[in-house]
Amino acid sequence: MTSRVYNFSAGPAMLPTPVMEKVQQEFLDYRGLGASLIEISHRSKEFIELMDQTDALIKELANLPDNYKILYVHGGARMQFSAIPMNFIGRSASKKAYYVESGDFAKLAQKEAMRYGKSEILASSAGTRFDRIPEIDIAKMDQDAAYLHITSNNTIYGTAWQTFPDTGTIPLIADMTSEILSRTVDYSKFGVIYAGLQKNLGPSGMALVFVREDLLGKAIPETPTLLDYADYAANHSVSNTINTFAVYMLNLILQWMKDQGGVKAIEKVNRKKAALIYKCLDDSQFYKATVHKDHRSLMNATFVLPNEELLNAFVKGATAQGLYALKGHRNVGGVRASIYNAMPLEGVESLVAFMKEFERTKG
Amino acid sequence: MTSRVYNFSAGPAMLPTPVMEKVQQEFLDYRGLGASLIEISHRSKEFIELMDQTDALIKELANLPDNYKILYVHGGARMQFSAIPMNFIGRSASKKAYYVESGDFAKLAQKEAMRYGKSEILASSAGTRFDRIPEIDIAKMDQDAAYLHITSNNTIYGTAWQTFPDTGTIPLIADMTSEILSRTVDYSKFGVIYAGLQKNLGPSGMALVFVREDLLGKAIPETPTLLDYADYAANHSVSNTINTFAVYMLNLILQWMKDQGGVKAIEKVNRKKAALIYKCLDDSQFYKATVHKDHRSLMNATFVLPNEELLNAFVKGATAQGLYALKGHRNVGGVRASIYNAMPLEGVESLVAFMKEFERTKG
Repeated sequence: MTSRVYNFSAGPAMLPTPVMEKVQQEFLDYRGLGASLIEISHRSKEFIELMDQTDALIKELANLPDNYKILYVHGGARMQFSAIPMNFIGRSASKKAYYVESGDFAKLAQKEAMRYGKSEILASSAGTRFDRIPEIDIAKMDQDAAYLHITSNNTIYGTAWQTFPDTGTIPLIADMTSEILSRTVDYSKFGVIYAGLQKNLGPSGMALVFVREDLLGKAIPETPTLLDYADYAANHSVSNTINTFAVYMLNLILQWMKDQGGVKAIEKVNRKKAALIYKCLDDSQFYKATVHKDHRSLMNATFVLPNEELLNAFVKGATAQGLYALKGHRNVGGVRASIYNAMPLEGVESLVAFMKEFERTKG
Repeated sequence: MTSRVYNFSAGPAMLPTPVMEKVQQEFLDYRGLGASLIEISHRSKEFIELMDQTDALIKELANLPDNYKILYVHGGARMQFSAIPMNFIGRSASKKAYYVESGDFAKLAQKEAMRYGKSEILASSAGTRFDRIPEIDIAKMDQDAAYLHITSNNTIYGTAWQTFPDTGTIPLIADMTSEILSRTVDYSKFGVIYAGLQKNLGPSGMALVFVREDLLGKAIPETPTLLDYADYAANHSVSNTINTFAVYMLNLILQWMKDQGGVKAIEKVNRKKAALIYKCLDDSQFYKATVHKDHRSLMNATFVLPNEELLNAFVKGATAQGLYALKGHRNVGGVRASIYNAMPLEGVESLVAFMKEFERTKG
């Protein structure tokens, strides 16, 4: 019998226990083959079947329109910080793209794009330490811009876009790494969506990309073949050996999501989980939420304690009770509870009970 | 009880059963943490410990000189086909590099380098359908060349370099994907070595890179941050979320290799395994080895049967006896037995027994 903790790690993050058990059970013998899924060819009929089934599950769960391609790309979201400008900045004659600076990763993405063209910051919330999503003025953008890039959920700071802007003919591109498939989204509003798997969808090392077909085929000549989205689209993401383990786990997680009732049902639980924590923070004179009320993330709840000593006691006490990895990001401090799809409601209830008890005894 | 086949897949390939069992056993609970290794942060002390231990094992097993950096890079060997010229072609004022065309992957690597400079084919064995490693004339190279690139073992064709050329001051770069750590190699002769993990070292999706320190820092400006080897070297390969599962499996496989007695001991078994198959081929009037005798690979043994019907019967019959994935690459046909480090001697003995029996009854 395994004793599993409630794991609040920001990523790589906890995965659904039933999925983990399934992987464990068939790890040496995938469905009677006598070999593991990770030991068979990416061109075997078993793996191709798995890929096709994964595509179908994504289409269904995301309600993805037919004119979008699903790509499985090497290297996580950070690799896409390069791939995005390489594939799309050439759409603009002046090689210009806009970025909204809503946190560290948004900034890294914008900086990386400077290698390949002009990447301008349309708006920033750096001035208020990224405690909110900045307001943007769409009208300020040159109409020949290649795209507008946003980070839909900011893992480090715990902010999220509540609604998405209408960018007209300028494609909207979003890094959804820390919230992909955690709430219903109208993907037809976006040109490109990408997400590293390691928070809501699987192990680290791969990114899931949705791209509107008409945007493909304009990559700059320096684009490595394995960062060229058109190459992925043409070869069903297996022009070379794909990360088979990541696809396999993604497949099982999507099936688990379907079993939970799909994204709508999961979103309902996610809202309940987040509300429990935020209510506890709002009711407290001891804890202080770090994020502006209207910009709170459903995935990463961040807060501070009165001092460093209390923070350390909090993290230590939580760990002792099986509440794991609550320490905030090194750039921010405080506490961060990452509550992705796989975190059960009971985990959040345990955390909130611990928070209240800690406040009662130490506050 | 798991029933495992002898898996001759060219990659992703079979991994040592004791390693697979260890991963299975601790899959939901890594060493008492209450979470899987794939569910914890790449910056946790447990993972950093694993990385340090992995470095030490590689250094020991490869006998790697101190002036080489070990990098764990996203995307497998094919991604390095781009990274190699991006990182090193700038060493040459004329942006010129040489490639030896000894197979399909060598050709792909050379073609990819053309995006970033002039990549010339120094020698090719395309004329004899890649049945050997071509002879090269080192003196023909411009002395200001950035590097010479070779593919040390050609997975598809079953050829291997038996000794490595002395390229003087021009760095020798080798794709060792399908033979890394299968035989002792003097790495000090090389500027850079790289290998996708999915044959001898783990699951697919990541590459291991050894690079001589003095070659770092000359990447062209268009190099994505996550393909810049200097960035990997400076950040111990975790400037972003590394493929934690791949590092974990690599670590366990290296420990298994050490338990087997290290590379020298494993090479001895590998030579024995290959000799068994090649002797069977040489003794036969029925099977025909496709590779020139002096260029045979220890990792991938390729041969043909008299006709397609017999080939299909061979593959079908072998499969029925638990000898899996023997069909040759689609570009070559015939049979390919990939016998990487994890393939036990008994697996090869079973294959050879089957070959003899098949020849006796169908030959």
